[in-house]
Amino acid sequence: MHDDSKAFETLAARYGARFSRSQALREQHGGGETHHAVAAPDAVFFAESTAEVAEAVKLCAAEGIPVIAFGAGTSLEGHLGAPQGGLSLDLTHMQKILRVSPDDLDCTVEAGVTREDLNAYLRDQGLFFPVDPGANATIGGMAATRASGTNAVRYGTMRDNVLALTVVLASGEVIRTSSRARKSAAGYDLTRLIVGSEGTLGIITEVTLRLSGIPEAVAAATCRFPDLVSAAEAAITVIQYGVPIARVELMERRLVDYTNAYSKLSLPAGDTLVFEFHGSAKGVEEQVETVRGIVADYGAAAFDWATAPEDRSRLWKARHDAFYAVLAARTGSKGWATDICVPISELAGAVALARDLVEEAGATAAILGHVGDGNFHVMFAVDPDDQAELDRVGSINAELIRHAISVGGTSTGEHGIGSGKVAYMREEYDEAALAVMRAIKAAVDPKGILNPGKILPPPA
Amino acid sequence: MHDDSKAFETLAARYGARFSRSQALREQHGGGETHHAVAAPDAVFFAESTAEVAEAVKLCAAEGIPVIAFGAGTSLEGHLGAPQGGLSLDLTHMQKILRVSPDDLDCTVEAGVTREDLNAYLRDQGLFFPVDPGANATIGGMAATRASGTNAVRYGTMRDNVLALTVVLASGEVIRTSSRARKSAAGYDLTRLIVGSEGTLGIITEVTLRLSGIPEAVAAATCRFPDLVSAAEAAITVIQYGVPIARVELMERRLVDYTNAYSKLSLPAGDTLVFEFHGSAKGVEEQVETVRGIVADYGAAAFDWATAPEDRSRLWKARHDAFYAVLAARTGSKGWATDICVPISELAGAVALARDLVEEAGATAAILGHVGDGNFHVMFAVDPDDQAELDRVGSINAELIRHAISVGGTSTGEHGIGSGKVAYMREEYDEAALAVMRAIKAAVDPKGILNPGKILPPPA
Repeated sequence: MHDDSKAFETLAARYGARFSRSQALREQHGGGETHHAVAAPDAVFFAESTAEVAEAVKLCAAEGIPVIAFGAGTSLEGHLGAPQGGLSLDLTHMQKILRVSPDDLDCTVEAGVTREDLNAYLRDQGLFFPVDPGANATIGGMAATRASGTNAVRYGTMRDNVLALTVVLASGEVIRTSSRARKSAAGYDLTRLIVGSEGTLGIITEVTLRLSGIPEAVAAATCRFPDLVSAAEAAITVIQYGVPIARVELMERRLVDYTNAYSKLSLPAGDTLVFEFHGSAKGVEEQVETVRGIVADYGAAAFDWATAPEDRSRLWKARHDAFYAVLAARTGSKGWATDICVPISELAGAVALARDLVEEAGATAAILGHVGDGNFHVMFAVDPDDQAELDRVGSINAELIRHAISVGGTSTGEHGIGSGKVAYMREEYDEAALAVMRAIKAAVDPKGILNPGKILPPPA
Repeated sequence: MHDDSKAFETLAARYGARFSRSQALREQHGGGETHHAVAAPDAVFFAESTAEVAEAVKLCAAEGIPVIAFGAGTSLEGHLGAPQGGLSLDLTHMQKILRVSPDDLDCTVEAGVTREDLNAYLRDQGLFFPVDPGANATIGGMAATRASGTNAVRYGTMRDNVLALTVVLASGEVIRTSSRARKSAAGYDLTRLIVGSEGTLGIITEVTLRLSGIPEAVAAATCRFPDLVSAAEAAITVIQYGVPIARVELMERRLVDYTNAYSKLSLPAGDTLVFEFHGSAKGVEEQVETVRGIVADYGAAAFDWATAPEDRSRLWKARHDAFYAVLAARTGSKGWATDICVPISELAGAVALARDLVEEAGATAAILGHVGDGNFHVMFAVDPDDQAELDRVGSINAELIRHAISVGGTSTGEHGIGSGKVAYMREEYDEAALAVMRAIKAAVDPKGILNPGKILPPPA
């Protein structure tokens, strides 16, 4: 499709090797990290500036060619597929850190900067950017999917940490969504509208972020529980006590085994919580004492401390690699991650339901999650060629989503809708709310060229 | 206008005294607390349920009659005026607290519940709702204007504390914008789009809020500085140190005098910061020690502690009444409050500029603000009949706004745009961003009946 378009001809002539129709590149840009089928775009363009993104979008808009923004390619819900063909707009060459203001605890970066690169850059200034999805995603992609991660319980998600965006609209016009002020009541919140819009309303090219100071003291510990539900209940109680915990992560016993094997760790076997405490030295001590008391009530073993910074790094690296650890447990498998998020009081019930469903199905899978937010994943390693198995996992996913929605939760805490959860939007929102989303999409992208087929189900 | 409409006839017949065309009531509903001219609606309807709001909006929509939502009437930027006439939809009868979930730290309330009523209700459960604009506003109005207040530096604004909304659309349809989950990546963030939309995209009838636990320890103190800029710089340093301060408020020396007179306090004269510390007993102690060291570097006098809860309440009541204290200093005056918010490193410069402009003009005014956010106000007491004076104050307002925008800030940190700042939207946003806002408005409210004339300037 679109092969004889003027847009592609122009981009090819102007940008040489930065515009490509190689099959390998197209296929790599039409998939993600999971079971979703690849839907390759017709071409890939590596843009190097906002102006080039605007130019490419303008060219495509003139001929109604779809444009799909692409960052690190770590999407889990089929955000990157091009079901109607079109141009994959790869932003990974846009890697400049444009400004860091330590005095204001903020910075502005190009969309292709990865979270790890940003944090490496910030470290010397005593600053860090806390949002950390498992993958080393780009900041632009994280903003586009409203990503979060292990630190969200204390530091919030991309929704809370993006101050402003530079966005290329479907017309090729460029807007700045807001100022650098910490708060503003000036008009519609375009920043929050674009955050989480998955490239369907505009293409994010620059991001202004809140930063945090590296805390004076950091302590991390793992802690085993007699069973999964006790671990979940302990996490709930920590949150209900109001402990300003930086991270509290649940790792099901199976995941501990997978992770020990994959990441060469020697965590004690069993259902585990991983805690991290941030604050002053005294503050951390106090938090640790409070949490120690709580976990004891749920039958926990003693804390295993990761005291040295390198031990902590290994531990969190392993936690971030959990998805790959599950995949490694089954040769040739692809991943499928559920992502429900429920009010915290509903967490233990939801986790128990997930465990029962996984055991019933005999799946290669493990439960883990950002339980401080009420968000957890079942990571399945599936055979992508076994339709019966995919259907079984799909049913578990559906059952968890329906349960989450029935108790006041959401189908996706942080992975987004992409193409994978479009059908559930109808269960999560009433038709009138979906109509508002569709009206906004039609108003902002009247030709429907921006990442078509994502987020919005067709009208009922 | 609209006097012989079927909508008004139907509402009058159905609701008796809850529908009124009395002049006094109309005028009271067409103004706010400031200098903006009253623009009275044609009628006022006191709705008692979401269904009644939906019915009234549907009736008005059929005839293109404007509908303006009304809460406590404490708007400072002319949000409530009805320049094209229409119906003022008063939500103050919707006062039910529908649900409080201590285990999830959230609640759902009707839009007409006031923040003081909510907090009185929550106190016994050890919970509070932290967002506190000066006035005893309704939760619906606070959501509609993206309000904040003294606690925002620690607890965030309405943007951060609203989890979900029930909204009546311009069609009369009712939507729920999201779930009770702490975070979600499911589609467009309608919650954040409606928060701050000032009744122009929909009418908020129910609000689901995050709550906070009442901290174990609370300490409040005032602290005098040799001059205004030293006080501002001390506040900046406290923030840059990362002290998790709950409140840090600047009161210019003039305001201290006005407040002592109006609220019968005896604060020591001078430019003052008011601090509040929340946390565990040890944590508060530690914060106090850090802040004590910082303020000493800026030549501060010793802390004056407000130790007893009733002393703290009096202090914050006085702070919240600052607007009225300035008005009381000039008989027959009306208020005019500026509201710029700048990156924190720009705060001292902006405050100094404001002080110079006020002194030059010889105005009855005082500076105060939520300096931890970079947000402050100049509260002017103006003679509403003296056009030359209004023009002078208008010029100061304009100069502060232009300065804020030039240093990366915003024209309004928390009061909103209303009708008062529409003209500045063009300076704050590029035309393409305004076009996106207009496109959204047209898509969601195609007849333009919801609070017309607010927020959006006409196309350039």
